[in-house]
Amino acid sequence: MAAKTDIEENLEFVPQFDEDGLIPAIAQDVRSGQVLMVAYMNREALDATIHSGYATYFSRSRKALWKKGQESGHLQKVEQILVDCDQDCLVLKVSVDAGQCHVGYQSCFYRALSKNTDKKLEFVAEKVYDPRKTYRR
Amino acid sequence: MAAKTDIEENLEFVPQFDEDGLIPAIAQDVRSGQVLMVAYMNREALDATIHSGYATYFSRSRKALWKKGQESGHLQKVEQILVDCDQDCLVLKVSVDAGQCHVGYQSCFYRALSKNTDKKLEFVAEKVYDPRKTYRR
Repeated sequence: MAAKTDIEENLEFVPQFDEDGLIPAIAQDVRSGQVLMVAYMNREALDATIHSGYATYFSRSRKALWKKGQESGHLQKVEQILVDCDQDCLVLKVSVDAGQCHVGYQSCFYRALSKNTDKKLEFVAEKVYDPRKTYRR
Repeated sequence: MAAKTDIEENLEFVPQFDEDGLIPAIAQDVRSGQVLMVAYMNREALDATIHSGYATYFSRSRKALWKKGQESGHLQKVEQILVDCDQDCLVLKVSVDAGQCHVGYQSCFYRALSKNTDKKLEFVAEKVYDPRKTYRR
């Protein structure tokens, strides 16, 4: 196992998968800087992402690879893959079209905690597509 | 337990902590949009963040609350807390000064995977402070 300072200071890519073999990956719109979603990758998903150029995740619920947009058409073209200091998290800078979240919004982060409360959310975005028309139920 | 559609469509804040009682939180610079770091919160850290207005995480290695910047002075003032569709991840929009990463960079994501390789990183940022002067070793 690589030493902590090597992982932090060197230029060898040694992603640190957790005990389940997963690493979190944040998809960020390369143009707007908006955080679109967070999902997980196993080694196979990361390799598929690197070699195909399109974001591929590992679905923890379905226990299977999941090429983002395979069903909806809303693919994420990967422009850059960043890794953090201890190499246990990735940021993917991606080019996308409209509608990245399956609920119908551009980003999964479409609600914010309201001021002076710890219980109540408010919408901070509007839907950009109708998911009922995109996903066959 | 709340139904999936309620969690996604409603305005009740019901953060979904994992089996270890943790939820990932992404700190994003409110001005530049840069993703600064990713850490974890337990319920207590989230409450401390909401009520103090400054990002407080749970250190998985030290098993203790960790107010970001307590030692270094590089506090994160929380301007907005966003939650994703299934409420198992947070984005904190934060105001910060220079030097958020303990290695010396503004962001923990200071390296990117080089083109046409799956092994080699390159630096995409320069250090903004000397951590040896900030942290007593």
